[in-house]
Amino acid sequence: MKVTFLGLGVMGFPMAGHLTKAGFDVTVFNRTHAKAVAWGEAFSGHVASTVQEAVCEADVVLLCVGNDDDVRSMTTGKSGALHSMKAGAILVDHTTTSASLAEELSQAAQSHSIRFMDAPVSGGQAGAENGVLTIMCGGDQALFDELQPVFSAYGKSSVLMGAVGQGQRAKMVNQICIGGVLSGLSEGLLLAEKSGLDIATVVDCLKHGAAGSWQMENRGVTMSQDKFDFGFAIDWMIKDLGFCLDEAERQGLTLPLTEKVIAQYRQLSAQGDNRMDTSVLIRALRREQ
Amino acid sequence: MKVTFLGLGVMGFPMAGHLTKAGFDVTVFNRTHAKAVAWGEAFSGHVASTVQEAVCEADVVLLCVGNDDDVRSMTTGKSGALHSMKAGAILVDHTTTSASLAEELSQAAQSHSIRFMDAPVSGGQAGAENGVLTIMCGGDQALFDELQPVFSAYGKSSVLMGAVGQGQRAKMVNQICIGGVLSGLSEGLLLAEKSGLDIATVVDCLKHGAAGSWQMENRGVTMSQDKFDFGFAIDWMIKDLGFCLDEAERQGLTLPLTEKVIAQYRQLSAQGDNRMDTSVLIRALRREQ
Repeated sequence: MKVTFLGLGVMGFPMAGHLTKAGFDVTVFNRTHAKAVAWGEAFSGHVASTVQEAVCEADVVLLCVGNDDDVRSMTTGKSGALHSMKAGAILVDHTTTSASLAEELSQAAQSHSIRFMDAPVSGGQAGAENGVLTIMCGGDQALFDELQPVFSAYGKSSVLMGAVGQGQRAKMVNQICIGGVLSGLSEGLLLAEKSGLDIATVVDCLKHGAAGSWQMENRGVTMSQDKFDFGFAIDWMIKDLGFCLDEAERQGLTLPLTEKVIAQYRQLSAQGDNRMDTSVLIRALRREQ
Repeated sequence: MKVTFLGLGVMGFPMAGHLTKAGFDVTVFNRTHAKAVAWGEAFSGHVASTVQEAVCEADVVLLCVGNDDDVRSMTTGKSGALHSMKAGAILVDHTTTSASLAEELSQAAQSHSIRFMDAPVSGGQAGAENGVLTIMCGGDQALFDELQPVFSAYGKSSVLMGAVGQGQRAKMVNQICIGGVLSGLSEGLLLAEKSGLDIATVVDCLKHGAAGSWQMENRGVTMSQDKFDFGFAIDWMIKDLGFCLDEAERQGLTLPLTEKVIAQYRQLSAQGDNRMDTSVLIRALRREQ
């Protein structure tokens, strides 16, 4: 099966690599060509110079880029993949986007007789490198089934959430929950620090109980050490939470905590913390004191 | 070793029971005597009719009651335990109280040559019944070590957090984190529901990732089913979060999310949800829509 991967960022680079290791005939494209060349040196696959060259023979085209506009430019845009893909081929978007973009792409794909699935991932850079991503899918069951060999190359689990767009909405739920967990954890840790408690001891004691969370277990100690130069950058989180609030508004919902969290991240980003991990949220609380 | 347990509520009743099974010579007291009689029928221990009778020969007196005033009445009050306990005996308070009460009790105990430890627990009724509580301790290392055989009767782990009061402060961190987790989870689930996502599928997919939490895993589905007649009642949570905010104020900290959460719980309680599990917080968000 010929598989093409568009976008070789911190996620796409290792994901495409896992596909070669799983035995697929892989072609890659990246806007900054040097990255694609570096990928070609690391893995045994084809390096294309244009989107058209990359996708014209592909059975499956996978995409993982930055924001909605990047996705459009790579797919429906003037030199986008949809204009060059074979009829009957499959387009999968691993980018975290708005749900409406997923629906827009699905319709555009259909008009080219191409099947589409939105499939944002969680697990971050480490999950991509270790091939243990979680993939939240929106689309047809048959298409989902057909893609299992591809997804299993870099995913530890893929779940069909419903029709096109539902993969993106499940990812939104994920991001909203992270914001809440980190808001509470920030307040708890602040009290713990001020009280002179040993954070590692507290985290170790609480992490498996009713207050426990992945963030507490994996970020509690680093938060109290003010270490954030790793993980999932808040500029991406701001983008994702923006999708959440747009989607909530479209559905007539108000999410006050998520509004607060995105405002805090925006402020942190403006203060220079834009590349820091989402757990940097505790700094916003510290500055409010 | 003679051990006395004061307070046979949903926590104390099974905790005292585990002590008899662990081979201790157990005496119990409860203000509503009928509960103590019921305990005596279920377990092989002594049922005392007064605090004085219950504690006068005890090596260790354990306490688990409702609020700070209940604790005072059972300990420093007119007929309280401290007036009748042997010099050199140990008083352990398993109640979740303010940190200042722990310090007050420690001083009062000292004046009677009694050693004191604050030791609030987490794990709830199920944890007490199954003898797998987590015990957060404040006091001396030597006293902590001496109490290990007692704690292991109903605890799966006990952790010394520091001096007297630090057990209570660690418990506060626990409660603050729960409030944050549930706030974010409520917003995430609301969007998921409104989007027509299957909650069990979403929870199962997200629970082990960066958004995962004990609350998501154990309460996500029941929250979306509007089921809350179990677990940890919000009236207790209101009490506990009150301690958190008092302690934060004493330390010059502002905890805006915790303030919001306690306000939501107070409103829910006033609306008749006072006995519902803390995960009922999602109802507050629903009512804000």
